[in-house]
Amino acid sequence: MLRAGQTIRLEALTVTRTQVGIIGAGPAGLLLSYLLHSEGIEAVVLETRSREYVERRVRAGVCEHPTTQLLREIGVGARMDAEGLPHHGLSLRFDGEDHRIALTELTGKAITVYGQQEIVKDLIAAHEAKGWPVEFEVSGVQPHGLDTEHPWIAYRDEDGATRRLDCDVIAGCDGFHGVSRPAIPAGEVRFFDREYPFAWLGVLARTPPSHEELIYTHHERGFALHSMRSPEITRLYLQVPHDEKIEGWSDDRIWSELSLRLETSNQDFSLREGPILDKGITPMRSFVAEPMSYGRLFLAGDAAHIVPPTGAKGMNLAVADVRMLSRALVELLRHKRSELAESYSDICLRRVWRAEHFSWYMTSMLHVDPGADEFGRRLQLSQLRYTASSRAAATSLAENYVGLPFA
Amino acid sequence: MLRAGQTIRLEALTVTRTQVGIIGAGPAGLLLSYLLHSEGIEAVVLETRSREYVERRVRAGVCEHPTTQLLREIGVGARMDAEGLPHHGLSLRFDGEDHRIALTELTGKAITVYGQQEIVKDLIAAHEAKGWPVEFEVSGVQPHGLDTEHPWIAYRDEDGATRRLDCDVIAGCDGFHGVSRPAIPAGEVRFFDREYPFAWLGVLARTPPSHEELIYTHHERGFALHSMRSPEITRLYLQVPHDEKIEGWSDDRIWSELSLRLETSNQDFSLREGPILDKGITPMRSFVAEPMSYGRLFLAGDAAHIVPPTGAKGMNLAVADVRMLSRALVELLRHKRSELAESYSDICLRRVWRAEHFSWYMTSMLHVDPGADEFGRRLQLSQLRYTASSRAAATSLAENYVGLPFA
Repeated sequence: MLRAGQTIRLEALTVTRTQVGIIGAGPAGLLLSYLLHSEGIEAVVLETRSREYVERRVRAGVCEHPTTQLLREIGVGARMDAEGLPHHGLSLRFDGEDHRIALTELTGKAITVYGQQEIVKDLIAAHEAKGWPVEFEVSGVQPHGLDTEHPWIAYRDEDGATRRLDCDVIAGCDGFHGVSRPAIPAGEVRFFDREYPFAWLGVLARTPPSHEELIYTHHERGFALHSMRSPEITRLYLQVPHDEKIEGWSDDRIWSELSLRLETSNQDFSLREGPILDKGITPMRSFVAEPMSYGRLFLAGDAAHIVPPTGAKGMNLAVADVRMLSRALVELLRHKRSELAESYSDICLRRVWRAEHFSWYMTSMLHVDPGADEFGRRLQLSQLRYTASSRAAATSLAENYVGLPFA
Repeated sequence: MLRAGQTIRLEALTVTRTQVGIIGAGPAGLLLSYLLHSEGIEAVVLETRSREYVERRVRAGVCEHPTTQLLREIGVGARMDAEGLPHHGLSLRFDGEDHRIALTELTGKAITVYGQQEIVKDLIAAHEAKGWPVEFEVSGVQPHGLDTEHPWIAYRDEDGATRRLDCDVIAGCDGFHGVSRPAIPAGEVRFFDREYPFAWLGVLARTPPSHEELIYTHHERGFALHSMRSPEITRLYLQVPHDEKIEGWSDDRIWSELSLRLETSNQDFSLREGPILDKGITPMRSFVAEPMSYGRLFLAGDAAHIVPPTGAKGMNLAVADVRMLSRALVELLRHKRSELAESYSDICLRRVWRAEHFSWYMTSMLHVDPGADEFGRRLQLSQLRYTASSRAAATSLAENYVGLPFA
């Protein structure tokens, strides 16, 4: 309260009101916004990076069956259907031999190789066409009032002006390093995590894939993965020690190590080399926050959980989260029914832990664990042989890989 | 060489000649002897314990499908078929709920609850009827000449007389603590093992089973197993710390702990108590010797490998070993073809490692690991829920449990 005669200068504050404030324009935030707008719920997406950055960020590349179905159903699947690469199987390679897991024959479903940045482009284009708001290059984003019915997000817009977004609900879709999860008071959320004693050295190369399907290889020198982004761009990974530096890996060393690990005696296979466009090292981590909500803040995707990339589940989990969250928010905001919003975390966590287990299973079956004893290594080989020879075991891998049905 | 006029006194030595000297009259040794005699190969079984002891020794109780098939085919399955209890499913109990794994519906096969001592009785009776030699209560058994084509076994008979059994082949079927495996020179065999940080407290009780099928329970207080030996005798197990002493477990404490762990909310179940006839603590261990042979010595069953009992695989592995060994020895001794004998270890080890993996999987999924972190506990619950809800995962458990086909 000002005294008579006193003057203070307030910085200009623009306040906007929306129903759902979404932090993060990755696949989770953009898809949530799309789903909400399609149901007549207002939403605003805030993103610290530029549009160019998020449209070029190379991350996940495998869409599981329920993900492709959803994108198709809601009308953003056209380019994925035209340019994505449907895969009906994958290879497990070990003991120098190739074993195909016939995904479609075993489950009736397929996966589609389509980069997450392509989905992001498609969703941004859809927002642009409809005039749905996505603000890039914002800064100082901070959620407030989470335990009230009127939370708000403080931030600066791309011009540096102070802004406030008043909401009914905030969705934290800002990834593992975002501000949303840390906004939950200590004691209100529990974390579970595991770090692995290895990392992935990933390269993007301008060369056609050496094989039409993904190859997951267990070799005594370490795991290797042959993947692709398009008919011209190959994506390849090598298991390296968790503290490995990229400087030690010349292009020549990378190709020769890939060649050694991917070699096979029962398939006509030779590795196609080409210019390496990008290389980097990714740590392997499992992480889960429980619950995935606090008051009027709901976390989705990497903000709530991380999986090692071996099971190709990260982006797909984000899609499953926001599909459930959009339903819960339509119920809450349109019909004033809170049951689904209250169950959001429990429902999602079932799928999250399934994916955490599957990702751990794929990771532990395929990598060389430097701490494993010889007994453990024999168990690992027996598990690989069994998975490649039992229809039940292969189906179990396949049904997780192509994606269990949404809840 | 004695000098002229010199005299020494030699102890009388009775030398017997056979084709296969078998050390150990457990299920492995007796079944091998039976299979060999049936094919016209001579064999002698030597056993340090008395006939009464081996006929009463309570150990394994679950015969997998290939085991029952074999016993039936070779003509020793009549009493098993009359008195054994065929089971078409088992229960997985966790989160306070019961989930049935429909073994027969998933695999077309069943298991049979029939104690190993009953199989031993049937095989001894068959030997007696045919006049095939089994010597009980021998002592000082020691195999010799393993790297020659004429190995022999030195021992004392039940009267203490010194004996020598000259053989073409020795079969070491004398269990984990027997003399056969240690007779292999150091450096010629490699051992793989793992110890678990828990043990099983097992009780035999005179009371009808509380449920018609086996119940494998994961409870926060630890694993429990409800099993049976007959319609009047129940067999029950509790996970306890690996260094637990039986003295701390009164009958009352055992029943009350079993009751707590086996409780369920979705099944009409109450634990039937009765007089406890026997109780004891069994450590949990995994162990494999590679290779399973050295020269003319072939190991079978527990002499070569140990599994924790959670998968009910110990006796069944022994049966698979001796079935393969009898074929290899018929080839070797009748037809002078050594290929199968040379492959014996490799062929058996595939199944052995499958069983080691399955037993480890069942053990790690169902027990409370005192060293596990919270992330590990959540993975474990997710795996249990998945196994109970996915037909592929349940089939994978079931096909291992009922027994994968013999090689």
